[in-house]
Amino acid sequence: MNDMTTPVRRRGRPPKRFDDQFDTRQALVRCGMAVLTEKGFSATGIDSVLRQVGVPKGSFYHYFDSKEAFGREVIAAYADYFARKIDAALDDTSRPPLARLQAFVDDAAAGMARFDFRRGCLIGNLGQEMASLPEAYRAQLEAVFADWERRVARCLAAAQAAGEIGAGVDCARMAAFFWTGWEGAVLRAKLVRAATPLHLFADEFIKALRA
Amino acid sequence: MNDMTTPVRRRGRPPKRFDDQFDTRQALVRCGMAVLTEKGFSATGIDSVLRQVGVPKGSFYHYFDSKEAFGREVIAAYADYFARKIDAALDDTSRPPLARLQAFVDDAAAGMARFDFRRGCLIGNLGQEMASLPEAYRAQLEAVFADWERRVARCLAAAQAAGEIGAGVDCARMAAFFWTGWEGAVLRAKLVRAATPLHLFADEFIKALRA
Repeated sequence: MNDMTTPVRRRGRPPKRFDDQFDTRQALVRCGMAVLTEKGFSATGIDSVLRQVGVPKGSFYHYFDSKEAFGREVIAAYADYFARKIDAALDDTSRPPLARLQAFVDDAAAGMARFDFRRGCLIGNLGQEMASLPEAYRAQLEAVFADWERRVARCLAAAQAAGEIGAGVDCARMAAFFWTGWEGAVLRAKLVRAATPLHLFADEFIKALRA
Repeated sequence: MNDMTTPVRRRGRPPKRFDDQFDTRQALVRCGMAVLTEKGFSATGIDSVLRQVGVPKGSFYHYFDSKEAFGREVIAAYADYFARKIDAALDDTSRPPLARLQAFVDDAAAGMARFDFRRGCLIGNLGQEMASLPEAYRAQLEAVFADWERRVARCLAAAQAAGEIGAGVDCARMAAFFWTGWEGAVLRAKLVRAATPLHLFADEFIKALRA
C-alpha cells in the first residue's frame, strides 16, 4: 500500500502515490492560503483545512512535519503568489510608473471585492496575530514585507527617473510608508466591506509622493 | 448565599455580594481588554480571562449574558479608555495642534514599548478578525473609528485655524487617512517589536499635511 518514492518516514496513514501526495500537499497549502487570508491563524483549525481538502486528520503528518512547518510553507506560498501579483502590475512598462502602482491598488481592490471583503492580506493577518504565533514566523513575515517594499521602491525610483515624482523623494522610505499604511487600509476595508479605505490610502499616498 | 440585589436571574454559581459582582465584572472587562489588545478574539479563550481573574468557569454567565455580550462590553470599555487617551493628548492646548498629534503618537509608542510591542490596538485586532467575529461587532467597531476620526479631525481643524496646515486640507478626510494607516503601523510595530513603523507613518503623515 505504501509506495512512496521518498525515503522520508512520516506518521499516520500513507498516501497512495507520490503524485497524490504532491497534489494533496499543494491542495493543503492552497487551502491554507485561502483560510489564513480570511481568518488568520488563531481562528483556523488545521482541522478545517484538512476537512476542506478531504484529507483525514491522521494523515496531516504525511505532508508536513508539524503545524508550524505547514504555516511556514503557507506563508512562503502566499509571499510568492503575491510578489507575482505585485510584479504583474509594477513591471507593466506599457504604463507610466505611478499608473502601475495605481493598477496594483485597483487590482487589490477588485480582489477583495471578489471575496466580498472577507479576505485581506495573509501577511497582515499573521503580523497582527504575532503574539500568539510561533516565534519563527516573525523573521519570515518581516522578510516578506522587506521584499514587497523593494518591489515598490523600484517602481518609485522608476517614477522618479520618469520625472513623475521629485528627485528628493526617498523611495525606500516611501515604499516602507506604503506597506505600513496599506496593511491598515486592507484591515479597514475588511471591516467596512468596501474598497473605500484602499482608495483613500492610495490616493493620499500618491498625493504625498507628488507634493 | 445569594444576596444579589438585582432581580436579574443568571445561571451558574451566584456571586456573594453585589459589590463583588460589580468588581468581578470590572475585572473581567479589564482583563478582556488586555488580552484582546494582545491576542485578538480568536486566540483568546474566555477561559483564559476567567482563569486570570480567578472566576470559576461556571460563573461567567452571572456577569454577562453571553460571550458576545462580554466582547461588546470589552470593545466599549476599550473605546472609552482610548478616547480619553486621545483627548489627553489632543486637547492639551498648552501645545500647538500638530505637536498634540505628535504627543499622541509618542504616547502610543511608549505604551506599546511598555508591553514590549506585544499589545497593539484592540479595535484593529478585532477589525482584522472580523470574518470570524459576531456580525454585531462590525457596526460597533466602525463607530469607534468614526469617533476617533472626529477627534483627530478636530485637532487638524485647530492646526488649520492656527495656520500650521493649509486652508485647503480636508481635515475629515485626512483624519480618516490617519486612522486607516495608523492601524497598519501598529500592526507592523508588533511585528518588528519596535516603534519605527509608528514614527515613520506619523512623520510622513504630518509631512503630507504640511505639503
